[in-house]
Amino acid sequence: MRVCIIGDCGGHIGSIFDGRLGPHTYVGAAASSDLESLEGLGRLALSKTGRELPLFADWREMLDTLRPDIAAVDCLFSHHAEVACFALERGIHVFSEKPAATTVEDLRMLEETAARSGARLFSMLTARFDPWFYTARKLVEAGELGDLLLAGGQKSYKLGRRPAFFHRRETYGGTIPWVGIHTVDQLLWLTGRKCTEVYAKQTTLGNGGHGELETAAALLLELEGGLPAHVNIDYGRPQNAPSHGDDRVRLVGTKGVLEVRGDRVFLINDRQDGREPVENMTPEPIFDGFIRLLQGSDDPMYAGCDGLTATRVCLAARESAGLGRPIAL
Amino acid sequence: MRVCIIGDCGGHIGSIFDGRLGPHTYVGAAASSDLESLEGLGRLALSKTGRELPLFADWREMLDTLRPDIAAVDCLFSHHAEVACFALERGIHVFSEKPAATTVEDLRMLEETAARSGARLFSMLTARFDPWFYTARKLVEAGELGDLLLAGGQKSYKLGRRPAFFHRRETYGGTIPWVGIHTVDQLLWLTGRKCTEVYAKQTTLGNGGHGELETAAALLLELEGGLPAHVNIDYGRPQNAPSHGDDRVRLVGTKGVLEVRGDRVFLINDRQDGREPVENMTPEPIFDGFIRLLQGSDDPMYAGCDGLTATRVCLAARESAGLGRPIAL
Repeated sequence: MRVCIIGDCGGHIGSIFDGRLGPHTYVGAAASSDLESLEGLGRLALSKTGRELPLFADWREMLDTLRPDIAAVDCLFSHHAEVACFALERGIHVFSEKPAATTVEDLRMLEETAARSGARLFSMLTARFDPWFYTARKLVEAGELGDLLLAGGQKSYKLGRRPAFFHRRETYGGTIPWVGIHTVDQLLWLTGRKCTEVYAKQTTLGNGGHGELETAAALLLELEGGLPAHVNIDYGRPQNAPSHGDDRVRLVGTKGVLEVRGDRVFLINDRQDGREPVENMTPEPIFDGFIRLLQGSDDPMYAGCDGLTATRVCLAARESAGLGRPIAL
Repeated sequence: MRVCIIGDCGGHIGSIFDGRLGPHTYVGAAASSDLESLEGLGRLALSKTGRELPLFADWREMLDTLRPDIAAVDCLFSHHAEVACFALERGIHVFSEKPAATTVEDLRMLEETAARSGARLFSMLTARFDPWFYTARKLVEAGELGDLLLAGGQKSYKLGRRPAFFHRRETYGGTIPWVGIHTVDQLLWLTGRKCTEVYAKQTTLGNGGHGELETAAALLLELEGGLPAHVNIDYGRPQNAPSHGDDRVRLVGTKGVLEVRGDRVFLINDRQDGREPVENMTPEPIFDGFIRLLQGSDDPMYAGCDGLTATRVCLAARESAGLGRPIAL
């Protein structure tokens, strides 16, 4: 595949070099704004491919000139939707950093464009391709939990120092759409259910000069069938912690309880007592998943992988926190 | 102290025999309804004290006749408030199973009666006297977490077979007031904050013939100062699990993260990386705490130990789930 890259802001773009279904050709890169640097991306591309990554001054011209198969989008979060729409309108498949959009208006535009386009949109919901969450999904699919009673998840990060565009809602989008979307997507993906209502509380306390950046949030969701669900996210993980993140999922069913914690899966049901973790299964690299989707795969692993539904829930959650009332979806 | 006992429904009444500040005299026991049996209590009292527990047919007559120092209340949950009010009106201190009340009307009556009475009300919020939660409280008091950004907790139980009165909201009160109150109280007690708003979702799915009993719930709370908080509770813990419960608390602050899990406390801040648990401290037995309160202790450990605030939050949470909207407190 011929791949163009727009931006290098989110930290996950390197996954386009890690697939095993290539080799692909990385034909050009451009920024979507002058807040973005492509230096690190250029070095990474050189080390991964042995070739210089051609840089372009204007991302629109680059896409129009090169007409790649794939646009890998990792620009300013608030530009994701615009760049994706531009590419999809030209029949270029989009592999995009999440969230798919940072405003409801942009999301609607993207949904309409994606529906019209023959090209595919794929969101970097990287957690689906973590062995522990992938294993959880396989166990749920296998019926190990029975009917679900409760679903919950957590994402906890180290804050460190974030680029200036994280300081403003307008460019960052908010911590629920940026961090929380992984956990929200996990719950939708693992349960196979839509979210029917969401309500959130969040705070910017202790953000150490990061402007409008929210440091923590808690979400209450109702999933289809009246399933209660909860999500908590924070940037409060101390620098001294032994790992960058502390991502969790916990599902309670009529036949068992499953927990993902510390990159391992613990299952308690009539056959296992949860003292020892289940052996992790290995999913394919995320970029290979995207390629398989383009090749026509209908693996349920990819359900909702355009990230539109998870983005909608997260934008509603962010809005609900501002309004002080739940939002029905 | 001379102690009368009313009922034996909740499973925690045995704590009245475990204090070290006695010996106390257990002068009589009665049921509050014909749904209650005192057989187990009689055997327990005999084994703990070496004396037969005198049984009475009518709890009101018992209290009026014996005029004990303390009424230990563990009757049908929906009778807690009525029995407590009867005792408090007579200047008899009350050591009561939680929740303090199962309806808002009963709670208001109890609040008014407790405010008028010279006697004290103490709720069996037993988790405060678990070494792990007690240790968490001491660490928070010592400032190990800095300013709080997020607070959350979990209580997960085995369902098993519950007595018939658990099957009806009218006598049981609901899973949020019965199970969730521990976690709600933990968050109020550990943070030292009031709850300003609550919203809950719950389900009765998979309750195995337990009528109206809710099997799971998720709560979103706002605590004073805009602190987001979340609680999840369930009866979904499999019979095969290695322990009866899986109670947790997690607090995220500007200086650290604390988690109670598996009866141990894990702390990550600039001095600890959370790989090994903190050594648990040992609180006094709960009944001794009650006796110290009667002796005039103003230890902050006992703040809110009448359980009225936690009960109010839980009844509002239960109501919010029915109404489908948050309730301000």
